[in-house]
Amino acid sequence: MSRVIRLAVIPGDGIGVEVVAEALKVLDAAVAATADSAGESVVFEKTEFKLGAARFLETGDVLTDEDLASIASHDAILLGAVGGVPGDPRLKNANIERGLLLKLRFSLDHYVNLRPTTIYPGVTSPLANPGEVDFVVVREGTEGPYTGNGGALRVGTPNEVATEVSVNTAFGVERVVRYAFDLAQTRPRKKLTLVHKTNVLVFSGQLWQRTVNAVAAEYPDVAVDYLHVDAATIFFVTNPAKFDVIVTDNLFGDILTDLAGAISGGIGLAASGNINPTGTFPSMFEPVHGSAPDIAGQQIADPTAAILSVALLLDQQGLPEAATAIRDAVTADLAGRTPASTSRSTSEVGDAIAASLHS
Amino acid sequence: MSRVIRLAVIPGDGIGVEVVAEALKVLDAAVAATADSAGESVVFEKTEFKLGAARFLETGDVLTDEDLASIASHDAILLGAVGGVPGDPRLKNANIERGLLLKLRFSLDHYVNLRPTTIYPGVTSPLANPGEVDFVVVREGTEGPYTGNGGALRVGTPNEVATEVSVNTAFGVERVVRYAFDLAQTRPRKKLTLVHKTNVLVFSGQLWQRTVNAVAAEYPDVAVDYLHVDAATIFFVTNPAKFDVIVTDNLFGDILTDLAGAISGGIGLAASGNINPTGTFPSMFEPVHGSAPDIAGQQIADPTAAILSVALLLDQQGLPEAATAIRDAVTADLAGRTPASTSRSTSEVGDAIAASLHS
Ligand SMILES: CC(C)[C@H](C(=O)O)[C@@H](O)C(=O)O
Ligand SMILES: CC(C)[C@H](C(=O)O)[C@@H](O)C(=O)O
Repeated sequence: MSRVIRLAVIPGDGIGVEVVAEALKVLDAAVAATADSAGESVVFEKTEFKLGAARFLETGDVLTDEDLASIASHDAILLGAVGGVPGDPRLKNANIERGLLLKLRFSLDHYVNLRPTTIYPGVTSPLANPGEVDFVVVREGTEGPYTGNGGALRVGTPNEVATEVSVNTAFGVERVVRYAFDLAQTRPRKKLTLVHKTNVLVFSGQLWQRTVNAVAAEYPDVAVDYLHVDAATIFFVTNPAKFDVIVTDNLFGDILTDLAGAISGGIGLAASGNINPTGTFPSMFEPVHGSAPDIAGQQIADPTAAILSVALLLDQQGLPEAATAIRDAVTADLAGRTPASTSRSTSEVGDAIAASLHS
Repeated sequence: MSRVIRLAVIPGDGIGVEVVAEALKVLDAAVAATADSAGESVVFEKTEFKLGAARFLETGDVLTDEDLASIASHDAILLGAVGGVPGDPRLKNANIERGLLLKLRFSLDHYVNLRPTTIYPGVTSPLANPGEVDFVVVREGTEGPYTGNGGALRVGTPNEVATEVSVNTAFGVERVVRYAFDLAQTRPRKKLTLVHKTNVLVFSGQLWQRTVNAVAAEYPDVAVDYLHVDAATIFFVTNPAKFDVIVTDNLFGDILTDLAGAISGGIGLAASGNINPTGTFPSMFEPVHGSAPDIAGQQIADPTAAILSVALLLDQQGLPEAATAIRDAVTADLAGRTPASTSRSTSEVGDAIAASLHS
């Protein structure tokens, strides 16, 4: 008997298509290699969804109700990257980000956006002395300034007023804070840092700080501290090794995780999971990078972030051995990279990592 | 006949008091040294305002209407830093940041928050290869998520909802964008980068982008580009030399300028001006760093950021020679710093810079 995991695959646009192909290659290799040891064989049954700027240009659809319902009926989602060429006039009114990517995160209640950062051996950080970097950002994914609340008045006139409303609820903050404490508890350093801007964003700041204080009482072995988001960016470049688990809101998490990707050697390596921990809806895994239309179709994108996103997917599906196998294979591949090997094509990198899993 | 400039001085809390003493020492030296060449002698007449956490603990006042009116009647303001010991229960309901610092910025219509970044010769950046860093962030100072709009419902219950409203107006955005273009025009590279998050914060993003596009038409020799705030943080660590003038909103500017301080060798060097370009109200100059209660009173704080803030003040008062003299003196002092000289006290650094201005 084998366990069937139904995977919705959204390659998306640009390099998304190229890196997803490699991620799936590695997924299959990892599952084949670990099936025995898991006691039960695992099969990923894939359904591909053509969504993104390309689909919009063809059909005018960003995300139909049918597609959303079908995606939601899967066990997990792998997404490459979505978004067309910046400034393309035909995409002016599309807003693929809000209408597709954020729509999926919100509809599928991905309240945890999990983004681990580490500097792999052999990878060069732009920091002169980064130290031992190994932290995870737990970014809230369904609230904050990302809700799309707000509006605009007298648009295009000298009297225009545009507002954006950050919405934060006790319900939404508490569940992501609990997830972060649970995670901190499992890690050797057991440290949690709340990042916010409580001195200015007082209403939401108090809610976040109060929630962290209350939940902390249930986790006496987790050390808790706090940093304003501006100060946090300083430590990201002066002492990123100080961080273990960071919990923060949707917008601060967006900013901090790109910075985290940069200090750890490039967002070509940064993986992420949009997780619905309750299991009501499928979780979605995607590299942090975008569709990079400027280098699309050239087979020069690094598929590592997408491949590491598959490792997060396997973790979440209760297949930690396969996940670890991928991480080990990626670690070995990164450590072996030389200036010459950076000329490998996207599929050559995927092939190399997949091959090392078979052996 | 001499020109009298009435300066309101707010040393504030912690190291604010120590660094302001040195900044004033250097101000007086710079003015004395350049008076002749300016054709007219200049005298700074100083009024000290005791404001901040210390004052609150003594009197319960954060900022009285009388103090605000009196400060507003001055020609310029020099501020050290305000804020007590984090977590001090007696300050729980004070909110010095909102009630004092932001109150001043908003009441005095400081719509330009000017924050230049450069890596001075001899200063070590945490980046391995920073390149030639020389950019200015023009941060909007009176709108965005800093307005204090928003609120909270059912506080302390499981049904709490807390909102923060970012308010953006055509009036407010256009004036700061124009300032940024004017500034870009005067700089050798004539480049302006709008930083926002237009793909998510669509209402305010469109206002900012449309305004930049419209004003750009009047500045054909300024090259304009755009970055999402998350992507901007990547370039801050991978290629900060690419930036010239950055224009951005209040919150993004807050985050980016701390990061800018970090990559350029520490916020101990980062100066800022809260500017009211119309002259209706006095502009306020302050180091970007805070009151650092942990090192206060020990004479170990670096007064350089406060001293460079005085240079910005002199620029704004139409005294560019004195400003340049200070920058040159600081540049020489920084270039001459050795591991041994980092043991100089706060006042020794101020003395050294002031002395070099007299000679
Ligand atoms: C594309 C964009 C909407 C998205 C975000 O802001 O969340 C991206 O930057 C990310 O971090 O996944
Ligand atoms: C102290 C705080 C309110 C302030 C801000 O957020 O503007 C500070 O961080 C700054 O950058 O001047």
